[in-house]
Amino acid sequence: MEMIIVGSVAFDSIETPYGKKEKLLGGSAVYASLAASLRTNPGIVGVVGEDFEDAHYDFLKSKNVDTSGVVKDKGNTFNWGGKYEEDMAQAYTLHTHLNVFEDFNPKINDDYKKAGYLFLANIDPPLQLAVLNQMTDLKFVLLDTMNLWIDIKKEELLNVVKKVNAISINDTEARQLSGEWNLIKAGTILQEIGPELVLIKKGENGTIVFYKNNYFIAPGYPTTATTDPTGAGDSFAGGFLSYLAKENTVDFETIKKATVWGNMIASFTVEGFGVEKLKTLTQEDISKRIDDFKKMISF
Amino acid sequence: MEMIIVGSVAFDSIETPYGKKEKLLGGSAVYASLAASLRTNPGIVGVVGEDFEDAHYDFLKSKNVDTSGVVKDKGNTFNWGGKYEEDMAQAYTLHTHLNVFEDFNPKINDDYKKAGYLFLANIDPPLQLAVLNQMTDLKFVLLDTMNLWIDIKKEELLNVVKKVNAISINDTEARQLSGEWNLIKAGTILQEIGPELVLIKKGENGTIVFYKNNYFIAPGYPTTATTDPTGAGDSFAGGFLSYLAKENTVDFETIKKATVWGNMIASFTVEGFGVEKLKTLTQEDISKRIDDFKKMISF
Repeated sequence: MEMIIVGSVAFDSIETPYGKKEKLLGGSAVYASLAASLRTNPGIVGVVGEDFEDAHYDFLKSKNVDTSGVVKDKGNTFNWGGKYEEDMAQAYTLHTHLNVFEDFNPKINDDYKKAGYLFLANIDPPLQLAVLNQMTDLKFVLLDTMNLWIDIKKEELLNVVKKVNAISINDTEARQLSGEWNLIKAGTILQEIGPELVLIKKGENGTIVFYKNNYFIAPGYPTTATTDPTGAGDSFAGGFLSYLAKENTVDFETIKKATVWGNMIASFTVEGFGVEKLKTLTQEDISKRIDDFKKMISF
Repeated sequence: MEMIIVGSVAFDSIETPYGKKEKLLGGSAVYASLAASLRTNPGIVGVVGEDFEDAHYDFLKSKNVDTSGVVKDKGNTFNWGGKYEEDMAQAYTLHTHLNVFEDFNPKINDDYKKAGYLFLANIDPPLQLAVLNQMTDLKFVLLDTMNLWIDIKKEELLNVVKKVNAISINDTEARQLSGEWNLIKAGTILQEIGPELVLIKKGENGTIVFYKNNYFIAPGYPTTATTDPTGAGDSFAGGFLSYLAKENTVDFETIKKATVWGNMIASFTVEGFGVEKLKTLTQEDISKRIDDFKKMISF
């Protein structure tokens, strides 16, 4: 196993100006693994409920996602309901039913333990740490988080941030965690906590990368077809890490290419509800969009 | 005269998290002309009051700004007071004293009338039109505006937008004027009104350029020294148009270089209060920053 992902597997109810959908397959681990599956065969560490059907497993397996790390527990799968207003910039949570996720205690199987690349997607920081501590052959760990944990478990979060190579975090959360409004200063402050790589996600405005003493500015791809922003950040992170895993290289040049790769996957993800677009996305689609993008930023 | 600028000449009172300053030389025509003066000798069309001192004229002239189009009227110079909160993204107007600006009726002198490049900075749309109608040898006209005119004089504004080659407008105003949230769609809608070039300004996130059927995405330069955002948009526009005027060329390649040139000037402007940074800025400073920027976006 080259790369594993720990995070949520969920059913989402999503409302945007473009429609309303119920019980969509979602969750950070699902988005990240589908995005990663274009370059590697990622394994998911997660928990689902009795309402998670064989068809869902079959779909993930058909996309080269390994589900041997997914445990099925009594009860229902984690369920999130959210709504986006016209600006599509922020999700308003309508409900969160943790269900089986409430007692999630990730146990990493022997095959997964030896993975070199680990994505700790957005879950309770002590669970992220518990996964990290079970790994034996790590080369690179990327962590994602959210405002909730900065609010209620900042100390535990900082404790795990210190131990990882990289964090991906959105602009609002970067300001909140660093205590600094200027994003360039914020990125540097976050590096000082521990990670040598900080990825600040700015939605449609792309990503700012801080690696050692270098910056890389990757604007977002200007899609006109944004339909549902859910999973953009997790698609980015999964796509990003899969690029490093596939190259098995961590240096600034590879990180830059990985960032653009992740941004492009995210730009496709938002063009459909849930994981719809990730079902049919190919490496060729992404490469073509990267070529377009290169022309758009050249001068 | 290669290029003239019509807009406000003002004294500003500005408060930001970095300090509070009174009676700073400002106004759209001042910022735009100082930015433009790095590549051309722009003329200003504007009005000032009796409190506008010789020292102010001397300063502008020392920067190769022609002030023969500036009229002095009885009363005080236009005075604006504004405040920025920590995010520095939006100015909150504390007061607006129009003073001599209230009866401004721009008369263009014979020398100015023959200018090929005209920047209609943000003023009352009928005044923009009155200036436009006096010009005899125009090659290219750029118009800027603000939410106030979209709110109260939309029809008059659209009437002048139809007649210009280009508009520069911020993201919020682009959404408001086009009625479309997606900025890429908004830019295309604005082109359909008339201008073949639309420049959507996104503050620290840079500029999106729509020229005929092409896009150009220019991220902002990631300065850590933002002190006062006042005049960023006018510096951008003045710098942008001066680049076209100096090259005396309007094509996509020149427009892309002009956009980056304007973005870089704006990134310097915000690093000091008022026009402080524009007092000492050189072409070499800008070229050096463009080189840094190129490295930051290359992959």
